[in-house]
Amino acid sequence: MPSVRAVAKPELDPRVRDSAFLKTLRGEEAPHTPVWFMRQAGRYMPEYRALRAGKSMLDCIRTPELAAEITLQPIGAMPLDAAILFNDILTPLPTMGLDLDFVGGVGPLIGNPIQTPADVDRLGVPATGETMPYTAESIRLLVPELNARGIPLIGFVGAPFTLASYAIEGKGSRNYERTKRFMYAEPAAWERLMGKFEALLADYLTEQVKAGASAVQIFDSWVGALSVYDYRTFVKPATGRLIERVKALGVPVIYFGTGATHLMPDMSELGSDVMGADWRTPLDQAWGLIQPGQRIQGNLDPLLLQAPWRELKFQTDRILREAGGRPGHVFNVGHGLLPETPQTMVHRLTDYVHEQTRR
Amino acid sequence: MPSVRAVAKPELDPRVRDSAFLKTLRGEEAPHTPVWFMRQAGRYMPEYRALRAGKSMLDCIRTPELAAEITLQPIGAMPLDAAILFNDILTPLPTMGLDLDFVGGVGPLIGNPIQTPADVDRLGVPATGETMPYTAESIRLLVPELNARGIPLIGFVGAPFTLASYAIEGKGSRNYERTKRFMYAEPAAWERLMGKFEALLADYLTEQVKAGASAVQIFDSWVGALSVYDYRTFVKPATGRLIERVKALGVPVIYFGTGATHLMPDMSELGSDVMGADWRTPLDQAWGLIQPGQRIQGNLDPLLLQAPWRELKFQTDRILREAGGRPGHVFNVGHGLLPETPQTMVHRLTDYVHEQTRR
Repeated sequence: MPSVRAVAKPELDPRVRDSAFLKTLRGEEAPHTPVWFMRQAGRYMPEYRALRAGKSMLDCIRTPELAAEITLQPIGAMPLDAAILFNDILTPLPTMGLDLDFVGGVGPLIGNPIQTPADVDRLGVPATGETMPYTAESIRLLVPELNARGIPLIGFVGAPFTLASYAIEGKGSRNYERTKRFMYAEPAAWERLMGKFEALLADYLTEQVKAGASAVQIFDSWVGALSVYDYRTFVKPATGRLIERVKALGVPVIYFGTGATHLMPDMSELGSDVMGADWRTPLDQAWGLIQPGQRIQGNLDPLLLQAPWRELKFQTDRILREAGGRPGHVFNVGHGLLPETPQTMVHRLTDYVHEQTRR
Repeated sequence: MPSVRAVAKPELDPRVRDSAFLKTLRGEEAPHTPVWFMRQAGRYMPEYRALRAGKSMLDCIRTPELAAEITLQPIGAMPLDAAILFNDILTPLPTMGLDLDFVGGVGPLIGNPIQTPADVDRLGVPATGETMPYTAESIRLLVPELNARGIPLIGFVGAPFTLASYAIEGKGSRNYERTKRFMYAEPAAWERLMGKFEALLADYLTEQVKAGASAVQIFDSWVGALSVYDYRTFVKPATGRLIERVKALGVPVIYFGTGATHLMPDMSELGSDVMGADWRTPLDQAWGLIQPGQRIQGNLDPLLLQAPWRELKFQTDRILREAGGRPGHVFNVGHGLLPETPQTMVHRLTDYVHEQTRR
């Protein structure tokens, strides 16, 4: 694996460097509160459904021209402040030897999930630049387009716990029974598994930054299922090493979990520039749970985009009031946009947050 | 609906009144920390699986002799400190006109879920003593048996939000999309729905207490999906009125939610005697989130009962340390026991907590 410190990060285009999004991530005052949405490129957009028709999600992700086009769809349609690469947190799993497929109506399925310590030791940690060249290529296609519009590109990975839970469960899960059983019964193999994810993900984010991603987000989507004790014991060390390695790349890092109010003090200690907050905790309280000076991204319940405008507006006002005009606020949903979301509401909300926060 | 204040509550048997469980619920010093487990009568017990063979869950619940026998199975097998009636939070729904079935491998399904305000207005609130006489009858069968062993019986209901979410979704849900859409779009009909559940559940708990339940638990299993603001606006008022009415019955009330660390301050303001805590938040921190003097029930991750004993013992020690010897602690899991749980571990854990907390 190449050393992450040796990376030649491309010079930031000045229009991107001075964008509201990157200013906010650096803790500088921005002309308005930047807005982007998790899963902003996706099924709620008619344009996306038309392009995807007859193609598998993995095909779109692995074809740089398609991934780039999908990434740009919401950027072309709405005045969003950042783009996020069209991809999926699970795409690194096949490079390790895990058979991944996305099954319509079911979600991701892994044909050969991890069941034993020997399964962990069989997992490879190949250089992602060689095994997933399409990701860097998609980014290289996107950057000139986005530079011209002054829009930063967010690279991302799933966090070690969230990827491990998929690798062990083999699918989505409600109680994470297999994952926790493995973690409790095989702590040494679990630690090796976390280490393999740390190495793979640090390398993969390095590739993304080298190709031109100007910020990265680490999605720890399912970590909220853990107790504080289990997070500290089984997850925090490897995740902390990953964040440290990524910060050394010189790009801002956003660390996000859902249902993780109870973990925010520990998660924030890992030193990301920004903490993602889901919709559950009011932002003013969330700020009290994290490190001084850390910024916050969030935190609208994505279901509010399916509510009448009066309710969406009312709760957006509430969130902006809780943010209290602090420059360290990136507006986002507290979890990905759902397919039933009306695109008109996403657009109207983006405009509204911009208008209300113009400085 | 009969006034809940007019209830003739049976005299408590002195052996039950002086049990470790009820002493702890009243905030008195008990000889040891009482132990019971959510879903302690259930599929993890071979005895239960044998009895259930060929019978539907609803048939067992609606046949008082069977419900009583299942309730007693874990009490006969292990030194638990309380029994909880074998029943399900969803059984009141059919009395309102909702078609409920439990489908193997799928879970509960409602054939005619609530979709419109008119659907809410069509829901009945019949006297549960007439529509669900089997519940009171099961309790009356159980009480003499349990009195002889000095074991209190816990009655229970689902909380208004959790029942409303099933009534609207028609099944289990990950994102509660229909529920939230309805809540946001039809706040007046939502309020009427909460009011109907409040009336029905107050009446139903009155029946259970009249029949001999000596404590009650209100399961708000899915409330953790809500933001603090939404809980306060859409759920707290009706739930508070329900808890107030049940407290007037003169039995201790336990109020429980999962994934609800962020809601604990608001939930605890509703004045239950005990707050149920799931496994996520350490007990010492949870005590800081609730009302002074309130007791806590929890909070082992049920998955730890599938871990090696060394890990289960270690984390049980941790929980008891976090409880810090306070008399206001009821030991429990943070969510129901899962079918794969080995009964030997449940038994060993019960003994271990008793030994470690003997005063």
